[in-house]
Amino acid sequence: MWYGRTMGIKTLEWKKGKLYLLDQTKLPEEETYVACSTYQEVAQAIKNMIVRGAPAIGVAAGFGMVLGARHATRKSLDSFSKHLDQVARSLISTRPTAVNLIWAVERMQKFARQRVSEGSHDLEGDLEKEALRIMEEDLQACREMGRQGQVFIPDGASLLTHCNAGALATAGYGTALGVIRAAREAGKRVHVYVDETRPFLQGSRLTAWELMKDRIPCTLITDNMAGWLMYQGKIHLVITGADRIAANGDAANKIGTYSLALLCHAHRIPFYVAAPLSTIDLSTAKGDRIPIEQRSPAEIINILGRRIAPEGVKVLNPAFDVTPHRFISAIITERGIVQKPYRSNLKKVFQRAGTRDDDPTLIG
Amino acid sequence: MWYGRTMGIKTLEWKKGKLYLLDQTKLPEEETYVACSTYQEVAQAIKNMIVRGAPAIGVAAGFGMVLGARHATRKSLDSFSKHLDQVARSLISTRPTAVNLIWAVERMQKFARQRVSEGSHDLEGDLEKEALRIMEEDLQACREMGRQGQVFIPDGASLLTHCNAGALATAGYGTALGVIRAAREAGKRVHVYVDETRPFLQGSRLTAWELMKDRIPCTLITDNMAGWLMYQGKIHLVITGADRIAANGDAANKIGTYSLALLCHAHRIPFYVAAPLSTIDLSTAKGDRIPIEQRSPAEIINILGRRIAPEGVKVLNPAFDVTPHRFISAIITERGIVQKPYRSNLKKVFQRAGTRDDDPTLIG
Repeated sequence: MWYGRTMGIKTLEWKKGKLYLLDQTKLPEEETYVACSTYQEVAQAIKNMIVRGAPAIGVAAGFGMVLGARHATRKSLDSFSKHLDQVARSLISTRPTAVNLIWAVERMQKFARQRVSEGSHDLEGDLEKEALRIMEEDLQACREMGRQGQVFIPDGASLLTHCNAGALATAGYGTALGVIRAAREAGKRVHVYVDETRPFLQGSRLTAWELMKDRIPCTLITDNMAGWLMYQGKIHLVITGADRIAANGDAANKIGTYSLALLCHAHRIPFYVAAPLSTIDLSTAKGDRIPIEQRSPAEIINILGRRIAPEGVKVLNPAFDVTPHRFISAIITERGIVQKPYRSNLKKVFQRAGTRDDDPTLIG
Repeated sequence: MWYGRTMGIKTLEWKKGKLYLLDQTKLPEEETYVACSTYQEVAQAIKNMIVRGAPAIGVAAGFGMVLGARHATRKSLDSFSKHLDQVARSLISTRPTAVNLIWAVERMQKFARQRVSEGSHDLEGDLEKEALRIMEEDLQACREMGRQGQVFIPDGASLLTHCNAGALATAGYGTALGVIRAAREAGKRVHVYVDETRPFLQGSRLTAWELMKDRIPCTLITDNMAGWLMYQGKIHLVITGADRIAANGDAANKIGTYSLALLCHAHRIPFYVAAPLSTIDLSTAKGDRIPIEQRSPAEIINILGRRIAPEGVKVLNPAFDVTPHRFISAIITERGIVQKPYRSNLKKVFQRAGTRDDDPTLIG
């Protein structure tokens, strides 16, 4: 029973009551899996970026809740709830920026309470099914984002993506890379510039690896080359994922996204964000309210265990930045393409039923 | 007899007829020197970036010409000239973008021809003196740029520099870092953000190392963080060096400079270039005529000998980009601060005598 399989990439797998995670810290050199039997192991794997990408850590946290509920006392609804709250806090505290983590954990919490109060006889089985539903829905959302968003990619387009918003960042298929995959499936020729995405190198280690597996033509560049390629007319559009989209459309994403979006704006190049509804946080009014995770200086000072900066150097390592909504040409979701003004149209997209028509759905 | 010594950093040294180069590929882990006894060794050291930085490779090439003349036949002026032309071509072909290399080699060529035609009895000694003059003039130019340019740095400023335009890129003191050093010597407090400058990591390996040696407060960031810091108001100005400045003020510099200059423009932050006259190439009309060196994909695929991208990935590795003159707030030279319009004012700066007054000299 393998899940999350897309084009040969299995990011997460739930098998016989354990969560198996493709170890993304080891790619592309090694394809190995880490098995998690406890919620603490899942939390550790999220913190250490063995699994990363907003949708994927949401899915992983869902299974973390299954594992966390396994050994919970069920003497009373109250004591069970308290235990599960503690599991939830532990999972949520691993990474503060991506809202999908909070979203998935809260969904599991709510579902568990409901099933307990309904007198479930197989709570673990129920929770397992809910976590699998989250996973399946994420995969479906990616395919739907692809179907909707691929209209923005002209035949012969040369585009840039930042970080990894691919099968490795989701249950499969990917958000930004899902849109690129869908464009290819629609018969379009594309060329993808992949920026390496320092410090964690998600671009060179993960996105280039994923695209090459799918035989999608790509060229690796360093982050500081993107603007120069835009100046030369070599990039026709940029598409990224997101870790949290505020109610006004401001989008937190991997550090460097802000600069890319501004460079797009200055060069009159469209900048698209592809993200499922689980990434949109209407309770956060604007981007400046999104907490930005600061990660260890070690990620910048060392590469693959070798030192590249002087001993004792001071380092700043914000893992994300926030792109102001005015720089975002459109937000591609599984329920349609959200246009400006985002404050009203992001609300509308939540009110829509799922779409299954062939044409893309424009919100706004 | 040590030359190029600044704050304990000896970038180049000419001793007993050999050129010693601080091996910049090994910093900051090791401080070792490479000795060059032939012009071919100097050419190889420039090509492999054992010595780098536009002014420093100019100085190194000057000594390369001394070594190249050493074993030249002097049967006739014609045969000597032919030999020296070949040495010159070999040195110039190592790196196409920085004009200082061409400038220094042509100056040595011209000087040699003149001394031969004058019937010099000690041509090697004459050439040695000329190469030492180039070195000494470069150091003086850096100090003068510092004196002139430091007026742009307010007390308490937080500034960003890209790549390494320091003692390691010159005969000593530095161009952009020279301006920062002069501001410190004038009693101003500064904080320097150093971006790591992928792929060669001149920022993290060289600039951070240099600033820490001088106890100048600095913080290391990845290249893709600069825009986000500007958005947050944390960067008050940016100062870089240059590898070639065209007659209209367009400036080639390390890849990533273009994006920084555009980001400065968008955030209304001044962007300064500090470069000696030997970097200004009035024979190149505009930036798009400057040849841009493409370096090996290996620089991006490997870090310290370890692979960070999938086997067989396609890579683009332009070593430089060109910043359009409109994004440059002023060009700081050893003869004064050149203001817009650059086409007329860059011509003027060449017509000026050296300045020794206390106030900065404004051209334009």
